[in-house]
Amino acid sequence: MAPKVSKEHINQRRADILEAAKQVFCKKGFEPTTMKDVVDASGMSRGGVYQYFPNTEEMMRAILEDGMIEFNHHLSNLLSRHEQVWHAINEYIDLHKNAPSDHFGIVTYEYFVTCWRNHERRNYLQHRYSFGINYFIQFIQTGVDRGQFKPLQPVSVIAKFMMNVLDGLLLEQSLVNLNDQEKEDQYDALRFYLRTVLQINDKRMQKE
Amino acid sequence: MAPKVSKEHINQRRADILEAAKQVFCKKGFEPTTMKDVVDASGMSRGGVYQYFPNTEEMMRAILEDGMIEFNHHLSNLLSRHEQVWHAINEYIDLHKNAPSDHFGIVTYEYFVTCWRNHERRNYLQHRYSFGINYFIQFIQTGVDRGQFKPLQPVSVIAKFMMNVLDGLLLEQSLVNLNDQEKEDQYDALRFYLRTVLQINDKRMQKE
Repeated sequence: MAPKVSKEHINQRRADILEAAKQVFCKKGFEPTTMKDVVDASGMSRGGVYQYFPNTEEMMRAILEDGMIEFNHHLSNLLSRHEQVWHAINEYIDLHKNAPSDHFGIVTYEYFVTCWRNHERRNYLQHRYSFGINYFIQFIQTGVDRGQFKPLQPVSVIAKFMMNVLDGLLLEQSLVNLNDQEKEDQYDALRFYLRTVLQINDKRMQKE
Repeated sequence: MAPKVSKEHINQRRADILEAAKQVFCKKGFEPTTMKDVVDASGMSRGGVYQYFPNTEEMMRAILEDGMIEFNHHLSNLLSRHEQVWHAINEYIDLHKNAPSDHFGIVTYEYFVTCWRNHERRNYLQHRYSFGINYFIQFIQTGVDRGQFKPLQPVSVIAKFMMNVLDGLLLEQSLVNLNDQEKEDQYDALRFYLRTVLQINDKRMQKE
């Protein structure tokens, strides 16, 4: 009879496998990674890994789902720590700017860029995109609800624009050499847009 | 003795091969395309195609180089047709928005997104990025030189931001379903940023 395995143990094994998969994806890229690569990196048996995930596609989805939950928590946390939503946005932008480049962002990009010719993956991206946008909409809408933002464009438009710019900056930083000043300048351009479109008065802010 | 082949004939054959390659790339994606696919699509002999290009990588580079020359001509042409550079920018943005989706934009994206793990290709992207940015800088700088723009951020920052946003919109349109209004709104957001940062007075413009 197989020994009883605790729920914690199962979760820990799952997390270990996903961590190993993430490391291999970041080294080789998603498409070139095989199940054997992940098995080797995990230090577990082949059967042990397959018990949790049948292929790398499922591993990638699980990592992305976990990341999405974390992203939502992160935004909620920012909003609960800052009365001024503009400060929350700035902290978010700073974290994005200073995020250590572990390559996982660009791995995710590479995974999704094939969607135009991979319909099943495209459906998943569509779902993920809608969720991500909705989190950003809620984030900005909180500033409107708190009477701090007076947007000159619809909040959903601003949220999409912000997400597009941030995704682009991640891509740019992964693919071309930008020095720190160039990087800083691009985030400033985003802040310039947001400050104008949300009608932020920085002087008023400082009194908070 | 081989018959003499005119320069025009050589150029035409080269163009035909690249057109066939482009069509296959747009259907299958760059990475999955083999030389055999291109030979079949071109209707030429294997030897005939290899005489011009040793591999699909060289074909892709040639298509991208031709596109870069075209891009530069296109911007120059816009500037010579519009006294008001703001109108030239708007025409450029409209063309970008209404460009027929032949998938080649997203194919190019997919080609470059692997740069983080393909160093030789990364060098090429760096070179291409610098050229593209410089064309955009010249484009915007013309408006400054003509006394029409009073930029609140450095022109190079604005040019990079504009390129980042436009590339992101191309990617978004290829990967997720945006309706026409959502698409229009995103271009409006870019115009909002540019109008503010360049200090464009639309009312003054209309008198042109």
